[in-house]
Amino acid sequence: MEEEMEIIFQKLTECFEKRRFADLRITLLDMKPADIAHYMENNLQQTERLMFFRLLPKELASDVFSEFESDTQEDLIRAFTDKELKAVVDDMFMDDTVDMIEEMPANVVKRILKNSDPENRKQINELLEYPEDSAGSIMTTEYVSFSAKMNVEQAFDKIRRTGLDKETVYTCYVTDGRKKLIGVITVKKLLLSDKNDLVENLMDTNIITAETTDDKEQVAMKFSRYDFLALPVVDKEGCLVGIVTVDDAVDVLQDEATEDIQKMAAILPSEKPYLKQSVFSIWKARIPWLLLLMISATFTSMILSGYEKELSALVSGATLYAFVPMLMDTAGNAGGQSSVTVIRALALGDVEFKDMLKILWKELRAAFLLALTVSIVCFAKLMLIDRLYNDVTAKIALIVSGVLFITIILAKLVGCILPLLAKKIKLDPAVVASPFITTIVDALSLIIYCSIAIALLA
Amino acid sequence: MEEEMEIIFQKLTECFEKRRFADLRITLLDMKPADIAHYMENNLQQTERLMFFRLLPKELASDVFSEFESDTQEDLIRAFTDKELKAVVDDMFMDDTVDMIEEMPANVVKRILKNSDPENRKQINELLEYPEDSAGSIMTTEYVSFSAKMNVEQAFDKIRRTGLDKETVYTCYVTDGRKKLIGVITVKKLLLSDKNDLVENLMDTNIITAETTDDKEQVAMKFSRYDFLALPVVDKEGCLVGIVTVDDAVDVLQDEATEDIQKMAAILPSEKPYLKQSVFSIWKARIPWLLLLMISATFTSMILSGYEKELSALVSGATLYAFVPMLMDTAGNAGGQSSVTVIRALALGDVEFKDMLKILWKELRAAFLLALTVSIVCFAKLMLIDRLYNDVTAKIALIVSGVLFITIILAKLVGCILPLLAKKIKLDPAVVASPFITTIVDALSLIIYCSIAIALLA
Repeated sequence: MEEEMEIIFQKLTECFEKRRFADLRITLLDMKPADIAHYMENNLQQTERLMFFRLLPKELASDVFSEFESDTQEDLIRAFTDKELKAVVDDMFMDDTVDMIEEMPANVVKRILKNSDPENRKQINELLEYPEDSAGSIMTTEYVSFSAKMNVEQAFDKIRRTGLDKETVYTCYVTDGRKKLIGVITVKKLLLSDKNDLVENLMDTNIITAETTDDKEQVAMKFSRYDFLALPVVDKEGCLVGIVTVDDAVDVLQDEATEDIQKMAAILPSEKPYLKQSVFSIWKARIPWLLLLMISATFTSMILSGYEKELSALVSGATLYAFVPMLMDTAGNAGGQSSVTVIRALALGDVEFKDMLKILWKELRAAFLLALTVSIVCFAKLMLIDRLYNDVTAKIALIVSGVLFITIILAKLVGCILPLLAKKIKLDPAVVASPFITTIVDALSLIIYCSIAIALLA
Repeated sequence: MEEEMEIIFQKLTECFEKRRFADLRITLLDMKPADIAHYMENNLQQTERLMFFRLLPKELASDVFSEFESDTQEDLIRAFTDKELKAVVDDMFMDDTVDMIEEMPANVVKRILKNSDPENRKQINELLEYPEDSAGSIMTTEYVSFSAKMNVEQAFDKIRRTGLDKETVYTCYVTDGRKKLIGVITVKKLLLSDKNDLVENLMDTNIITAETTDDKEQVAMKFSRYDFLALPVVDKEGCLVGIVTVDDAVDVLQDEATEDIQKMAAILPSEKPYLKQSVFSIWKARIPWLLLLMISATFTSMILSGYEKELSALVSGATLYAFVPMLMDTAGNAGGQSSVTVIRALALGDVEFKDMLKILWKELRAAFLLALTVSIVCFAKLMLIDRLYNDVTAKIALIVSGVLFITIILAKLVGCILPLLAKKIKLDPAVVASPFITTIVDALSLIIYCSIAIALLA
């Protein structure tokens, strides 16, 4: 598949360079908008893109445009004539236009709005007012609606009349005179019904809706739970104001997963694909946590320094130092396992704060088993391997593996409690993930290690 | 929303306990199958579930059954009469049946197959033969197909005749006499065309397909790229054998993200939701990496022991030890940031192995900036804060922050190269994520730290 695409891309380049534009158009007509956009962004110079865009078959132009990264969109808009801009914007779906506008500087926004139909402009302005990350910000206002007294034939007529511009026609919405949403009906149901049946007798009145201010992640989770193709969005009065379609829900789910993964790795989330990020923006996303965690490691230095004299006084002081990294890493890994498990379960809606005790009890038992296994193996390893290069006595081996046992259990408990507490106080659980927990767990394990070793060996 | 659901759940429990079954059914009719399944699994004892299931309105029973976890399904099947089993299985969508069977023990599978229609049984057996994680394993054979010479009216007739049992009717497939896929047509297109138009003139012949053996993750990524509602699956000869629908693609995307997150946190992936996992299965998923990483930390112990004598001979030996955790953690965090970024970009298809040099160059520049910032701040911190409790001289501060500079750059390079190499040799990039990279980076930074310190301070 990928190779096939490479061949098509090469053909495009050849046709474009040799100015065989008729061939170029034929090839383009057989391609999907997403692939054309990918080609233009990755294989053309910025200066070539406008010329290439003008060669696109008319029916593809706005679809391709919707697929671009916002930087590419901005460059093109700045190069467009007013007429070109109007043609593209009028043809785009409303939610794509709004997504685009949200990323543009003010002067470009102004130009886009100036070149939209008055009706579109009004709707765009309304959509722009919804908070970022809300259902309102990802919905489109282009849906098909019926009144309850229509029959199936009239419903199909309405779809035929208005459907071309709608993002989906497969789920239609039934509203009363005040635009209050009273039912949902699918085209499948319409197709399988008699043409004289009334919409009100066929429609499903058991409707799952989102409110405009709902978080878009929760909206997307409803798609994965109920297998919808589209979800109606209503205002506080229950009036239909728009719909979210499954393709946008998929994007939200993917973005949220990426964001959580970034946060878990101590990176501030970025929406751009990796290769489009500037070195400076990568620096900006990574430096805050890196600095914070480096500075908070002062605690571990302080702890080690604090115990220094007593440790050095022990015959086996240096031997004990040698196991600090192993203890810290293992505790960090153990805590990370728990925190990441709980964070993902929270994101998927598998667990909630009220399950805290259930989770604690489960993690405690798992931690006990894990700590037992790891510390037994560690004891064996110390006596068999580490003895070969180090003065490990049975007593030291017992202390190290005993401390390992305690710290694994502590790390697991910290790892599962912190994300839940974060959720409770409405912080994002993902930001307290492993790097943060590692810092806490490091300090804890060092204190335990040093104090136990000094108490038993002094 | 969640509260509303709690109230409905309480009502169900009340009706069920007081045996007000008529009220119960009315409430159930207004609920989505996913919610009923959720209620039954979380609020009913295993022994109550069969009785409750028998009370479900007939049209909901198999939909609810499809939503259960496989444990619940197995318990119910064991309790079902043959007649009940047949009714449920015949009514389920083929892909759900196959998903279910894949989780069942052999004797239950046998009973399910015995109680299916001969035609269904044949198709189930065929679907069961596709490798796990392949497109074949998640597709359904229930789609609507046309021949090219049909007109729009005939096409609608066929949808009306056969559509009720199909998982989706909105994308239909055009095949020739040998079942070779020659076109795709949407119901929207059909609705907007004249009833005498021929399917062959309306259909889209530029078809994106999957092969039965394609990886299901790649198939799901096509949905997120092209915004499909369904994707046709063909065999090696290009004959249509099934379709994948967007709801299943969403599940795959969510599962793959969860799996990657688990692997990045050194956990073997599990498909079950957290609260359904037994303590033993949690232990099994977490112990291998925990042990492996603990044992591989032997290297850090060996390195520290190896340098022990020389370090102890230095006046500032103990001071140097105090910064080992800080160095290791910071390098681990830096490496983790890069590896996780590259792993996710690979999973999203944003980068490929051939982008290796681009990635390296970008990471190298970002690493330089990050290392510079962190080591300058670290130097300041050492001179201002750490001097208060430790014998940090300017020379030691320079060594520590210099080593930090080098290890951050090394960690970032290791962090971005390893996942790419893993991808190249067809390993899963996610398994070489931060915990694994931390171990390598720990060893590297210790060697550099000890050797530089000894060289400059001895």
